[in-house]
Amino acid sequence: MLTTRLTKRLGIDHPIIQAPMAFAAGGRLAAAVSGAGGLGMIGGAYDAGDWIAEQMDVAGNQSVGCGFITWKLREHPQALEQVLARNPAAVFLSFGDPAEFVPAIQAAKVPLICQVQTLRDAAHAIDLGAEIIVAQGAEAGGHGEKRATFTLVPEVADYIARHAPDTLLCAAGGVGDGRGLAAALMLGADGVVVGSRFWASEEALVHPAMLEAAIKASGDDTLRSTVTDIMRGYDWPQRYTGRVLRNEFTDRWHDDPDGLRAALAQELPRWQAAVAEGDARTANAFVGEVTGLIGAVKPAADILRDIVQGAEVALGQTFTR
Amino acid sequence: MLTTRLTKRLGIDHPIIQAPMAFAAGGRLAAAVSGAGGLGMIGGAYDAGDWIAEQMDVAGNQSVGCGFITWKLREHPQALEQVLARNPAAVFLSFGDPAEFVPAIQAAKVPLICQVQTLRDAAHAIDLGAEIIVAQGAEAGGHGEKRATFTLVPEVADYIARHAPDTLLCAAGGVGDGRGLAAALMLGADGVVVGSRFWASEEALVHPAMLEAAIKASGDDTLRSTVTDIMRGYDWPQRYTGRVLRNEFTDRWHDDPDGLRAALAQELPRWQAAVAEGDARTANAFVGEVTGLIGAVKPAADILRDIVQGAEVALGQTFTR
Repeated sequence: MLTTRLTKRLGIDHPIIQAPMAFAAGGRLAAAVSGAGGLGMIGGAYDAGDWIAEQMDVAGNQSVGCGFITWKLREHPQALEQVLARNPAAVFLSFGDPAEFVPAIQAAKVPLICQVQTLRDAAHAIDLGAEIIVAQGAEAGGHGEKRATFTLVPEVADYIARHAPDTLLCAAGGVGDGRGLAAALMLGADGVVVGSRFWASEEALVHPAMLEAAIKASGDDTLRSTVTDIMRGYDWPQRYTGRVLRNEFTDRWHDDPDGLRAALAQELPRWQAAVAEGDARTANAFVGEVTGLIGAVKPAADILRDIVQGAEVALGQTFTR
Repeated sequence: MLTTRLTKRLGIDHPIIQAPMAFAAGGRLAAAVSGAGGLGMIGGAYDAGDWIAEQMDVAGNQSVGCGFITWKLREHPQALEQVLARNPAAVFLSFGDPAEFVPAIQAAKVPLICQVQTLRDAAHAIDLGAEIIVAQGAEAGGHGEKRATFTLVPEVADYIARHAPDTLLCAAGGVGDGRGLAAALMLGADGVVVGSRFWASEEALVHPAMLEAAIKASGDDTLRSTVTDIMRGYDWPQRYTGRVLRNEFTDRWHDDPDGLRAALAQELPRWQAAVAEGDARTANAFVGEVTGLIGAVKPAADILRDIVQGAEVALGQTFTR
C-alpha cells in the first residue's frame, strides 16, 4: 500500500487515476480500475452526453469519474450537467480554460481535477480552485503539448507549495509502471494519471490490432501529430497535438498537413476503413512513448497491482553502501 | 552519500556527471565538480583541440573528462587523440555514430560514455561496448531530440538488463535538483548527467545577462529550435535541435528558418553583437526546461551538494500510513 495525500483525499487505496481517454475509456475500464483501488474515469471527451450516460450505467455501482475535453465541452455543456447529476467521483477537465465550468462543479461538491501542460495553465487552474492539478508531459499518448513530465511536475509542485499548499498534484505522461509512479512521487507528485498502460488493458475499448501494433513498438516509434485530427475533422486549438504510433500514414502526411487537407476526399474513405478494420498501417494507435514498456494486454486490476508493487520495489531500494 | 554502480565504477563520491556543455563547460567548472565529488567534464564540442588543451590545463590536477559532438569530431579527430594522451577520467560522445572512435578510446583504457536520444541508438552504443549510456530526454538544454527522459530511461534500463547488464545508465535532460536525481534512480538509472543547473554556476563560462534571463524564466519559456545553429553556421544533422530560452529573436524566426537563412546578411551582425554584449532579447540562453527550477547562480560545489542532499530527502520519504 502506498499512501499519499491523494489516496487520503479521494478515499482510494492506490495513488493512481486512470486517464479519461477518448473512446478507449468506457465504464468497464473505469469500474475495473476503481474496483481495484484506483480511481477509474470515463472518457467523456467529445461526447454530448448519451454515450457517457450509457458508460456510467456500465460502471454500475463503482464510484467513477468522468473527463472532458474542455474546448469541446463548450459545444454541449449539458454533458457536464448530466454527469454532475449522477454524483461522479470527480470531474477531469483538460485542454482549454476550465473557468466557465468551475462554478457548477463546485456547487455540486464534486472534486475538480484540472490537467495542464504548462506552468502558466497550472497557476490558472490553481487560482480557479481545482483540487487536483495533473501536470501532463509531452510524452503522453493522445493530446498534449510540449513540456516534459520530468520538469513540469517539480515546477508545479514548487508553485503549489508557495501558493496553494492544499492543492494536490499528479503526474501524467510517461507513467506506465512502478518505476514511473515512484519517480513521480520523487518529483513531488501525490499520485499519477496513467493512460497508455490502461489503454492496453482487457477492459479498454481498443481494436486488438492497435494493441498488437503498440506492443511491438518501442517508444522511438511514436510522434506528436495533427494528422488524426485532420482525418477526424476535429478543430483542436493549434497548441495541442496528438501522440500516436507512427505508421505509413503519418510517414506520408505528418510533414504535409496542408497536402492532407487537400487530399482529404481520397484519403478519408481508406483511412476510415482502416480504423474500422484495425489496419495499423493506416490507422494510428493513440499511445504514448510508454508503449515501449508495454509487453502484453492485461486486466486493468493486474496492471494496477503491478504498478503499485513495482513502485514499492523501486522505493525500497537503498543507495547507501 | 548516495552510492550506486556509477560511483563505484568511476570511483566518485556522488552519482552526478556534469554535462560537457559547448563553450560553457571549461576547466574551472569541470575541476570544481570533480573536486566536490562528481565527475566534471570539459565541453570539447566543436573545438579542434587548442581550447580543450588550455582548459585541461586550467583543470589542473583534478581528474576530469572531455565531451565531443560526434559528427563534428569527424572533422578534427586529432582532438580526441590529444585528449586521450592526457588520460582523461572519461570521454563523452554524443550526437552521431560513435563507432569509428571506439577503438582508440578502448585502446587507451578510458571509460567511454555515449549519450543517446533513442532506444535504437542506445542499443547501438551498447553493442559498441560503451561503459556508460546516457539517455538524454528532449527537455534538456542545448542539442537533443524528441524522446522524454521519463520514458527513455526505463526503456533503456530494460534493454540493458536483457542484453548487457554490466553497462551503466545515466539520465540526462530535466535533472536540476535532488528530486530529479531521486526520480532518475527510481526510473532505473545509476546516476545523472546535469547540464543546465551547472550552466548556471559561478564557474561556467556564460554571460551574466544569459544567466539573469534564465533565472527569471519558467520552464514554459524554452523551445527546441534550429535558429541558433543557422546563426552560427553549424551544419547539425536535421534530427537534432537546440533547446534555448525563447526571446524576440526566436519569436520572429523560429517558424521561418528559410526566411532567416535568406535574411542572414542583415541579421548576423546584430545577432553576433547581442551574443557579445549579452543582449538576451536577441541572443539565446542555452538552457533546458529545468530553468524553471533554477533560482540563483551558485558555486558548482554548492549545486552538487544541494542535489545530493535533496535526493536523500526525497528518497527518505515514506509512503505508508
